[in-house]
Amino acid sequence: MRLTATLGEAYNHAPYPMNGHGKRNVHVLKEAFEAVDGDVDSDMYGNGAIMEQFHNTFAQLLGKPAAVFFPSGTMAQQIALRIWSDAAGSKKVAYHPLCHLEIHEQDGLKHLHHLEPILLADTTRPVLLSDVLNMPEGVACLLLELPQREIGGQLPDYRELEAISAHCREKGIKLHLDGARLFEITPYYGRSAEEICSLFDSVYVSVYKGLGGIAGAVLAGEYDFIEESKVWKRRHGGDLISLYPYFLSADYYTERRLPRMAEYYEGAIALAELYNSCQPAIRTVPQVPVSNMFHVHIGMSKEQLEPILIEVTQQTGIGFTHILRPTGDASCFYEVSIGDRFAELPREKARDAFRQLSDRLMTSHNRNP
Amino acid sequence: MRLTATLGEAYNHAPYPMNGHGKRNVHVLKEAFEAVDGDVDSDMYGNGAIMEQFHNTFAQLLGKPAAVFFPSGTMAQQIALRIWSDAAGSKKVAYHPLCHLEIHEQDGLKHLHHLEPILLADTTRPVLLSDVLNMPEGVACLLLELPQREIGGQLPDYRELEAISAHCREKGIKLHLDGARLFEITPYYGRSAEEICSLFDSVYVSVYKGLGGIAGAVLAGEYDFIEESKVWKRRHGGDLISLYPYFLSADYYTERRLPRMAEYYEGAIALAELYNSCQPAIRTVPQVPVSNMFHVHIGMSKEQLEPILIEVTQQTGIGFTHILRPTGDASCFYEVSIGDRFAELPREKARDAFRQLSDRLMTSHNRNP
Repeated sequence: MRLTATLGEAYNHAPYPMNGHGKRNVHVLKEAFEAVDGDVDSDMYGNGAIMEQFHNTFAQLLGKPAAVFFPSGTMAQQIALRIWSDAAGSKKVAYHPLCHLEIHEQDGLKHLHHLEPILLADTTRPVLLSDVLNMPEGVACLLLELPQREIGGQLPDYRELEAISAHCREKGIKLHLDGARLFEITPYYGRSAEEICSLFDSVYVSVYKGLGGIAGAVLAGEYDFIEESKVWKRRHGGDLISLYPYFLSADYYTERRLPRMAEYYEGAIALAELYNSCQPAIRTVPQVPVSNMFHVHIGMSKEQLEPILIEVTQQTGIGFTHILRPTGDASCFYEVSIGDRFAELPREKARDAFRQLSDRLMTSHNRNP
Repeated sequence: MRLTATLGEAYNHAPYPMNGHGKRNVHVLKEAFEAVDGDVDSDMYGNGAIMEQFHNTFAQLLGKPAAVFFPSGTMAQQIALRIWSDAAGSKKVAYHPLCHLEIHEQDGLKHLHHLEPILLADTTRPVLLSDVLNMPEGVACLLLELPQREIGGQLPDYRELEAISAHCREKGIKLHLDGARLFEITPYYGRSAEEICSLFDSVYVSVYKGLGGIAGAVLAGEYDFIEESKVWKRRHGGDLISLYPYFLSADYYTERRLPRMAEYYEGAIALAELYNSCQPAIRTVPQVPVSNMFHVHIGMSKEQLEPILIEVTQQTGIGFTHILRPTGDASCFYEVSIGDRFAELPREKARDAFRQLSDRLMTSHNRNP
């Protein structure tokens, strides 16, 4: 046992890491291109047969007239909000306080587009109709993230969504979907991506979350909206001469993983049950997952928990997480996201690992109550 | 002979196209990754061993303390100008009227960064010291493009450059190099990239022009400048989770093509001589190339010239260009850029093709003087 290992190292060396599809390495690219003919022409600045085909595939999947590939969701979503803001002649947009644009993009929306976000709901729950009804006047666009990643991937009830959509249509407020993990929620809602998207005016999906591509995003909507987004894509520096390394691999992995979304969702439910068997030391948010993800909250400091997780990982071969995030002096959490790996997990070994973890947490708790 | 072929089709089907390194197809990616171990870990949002190594290679090549990979030059250069503008507290930047930022980026610099470009020189020649001396007060940054692509890749005299650099340093004006084709001018100047860059505060180079990568750019400068550029890269949506498909292939092709820059330059001189043997119908700009590129100007309308070029291409197998750009009712031009392909060109066939082209232009000219 290497006592000097960090949690990240222990996780990466574990024979059975529980999260995601697999290691993010060059093999992901090589596998995707193995069957692609080398003579296939590159896309050229957003044009070309292979790109058109990809755009059509996603327009159809999302039930929108048009779709366009972007190098990143950061770029796609800022641009979507900018277009709706310009159309409405208002700089006001609304979203959740833990929206990606608010906390992960170095305030690009404000520095580049000078938009003025209004924060809805609080940091523990998703946006509800009541939040939307209480918005100030003049909001050009409301962004909803489904599932809301930073709170464990929570979702509003589908009827709540329909009511928000109906209200926005009535009021002329554009509704944009941050669907980074859109396909991952289709099993819980029991609706196709297309049905969910029909509630929204514009939609962004990521190609490297549940779909497991290398990087990139798709923006979809009406034809004119997508054409305008391409102009902004050029302005942002996202209209690369060749984007095929990303969208051809996205295409490859979408074909393989789209049919497995229900399996990932069920995996999340099963794994959350295992975590919740360690209550009260551990609890998951949501308690019963509504997508392929959830958060694990532990009533112990990052510094206390880290050596325990490293030891259990090294002794059992089961990788829980590569990183812990503190939520206070005496608690921390991490994100779990189910992908291909979960199907390979030896269940008896996993149960044993959870037993050991539970014992260690109990002992530690009794020592430092 | 397919009479219905477009010029682009005739060029693409020609056994000996004269421009560039080769077809832009998936093979470019596959070749670059053939020797890369699949187990190599991806970069993660700008970090990771392979990215650090790439950054170090380019920092060293360009003789700057730090370098960072960008998905595009559009993004890198807007950001460079924004940083210098913020530092100086002035929105004024200066560049050539045919600068990439002015004509190819849908005015991203103005829409996203609200900078106010001052256009120097005219559209027939590069920026000179006299232009710089006549700039209004308060310019935060002067951008020089070497070579100036849109005018055939012209260059100022190296002493002129040194004088501009000295003047800018004295006046506290930051000097930024648009070095999309920087390595391509080192043979003519007889200076290393590092020496040329020492005249500039910040430098952008493209990895897919002479170097022949898939897409992307490098920005180099002082450590603090590069750190700030990474914040803006995130804001622009350019801080992708994985950029390795681009920078690992850039690395591969840089190693192969950097040593061949003198050969490309000499090829351009030889080819321009062939074109100029068709005078007065054809002339090149510059007459004697100063990099691997030049423009071919022909005193005939695009519509008149196209069928002639298609026919000569199909009869001789030599591809001249895939596209013509009109410069007026009775003239047009195209860009020539020398890469790997030129070494494979059968010289006797090429001379024969130019004889045929010259004859056809002469006949046509006599018919429509």
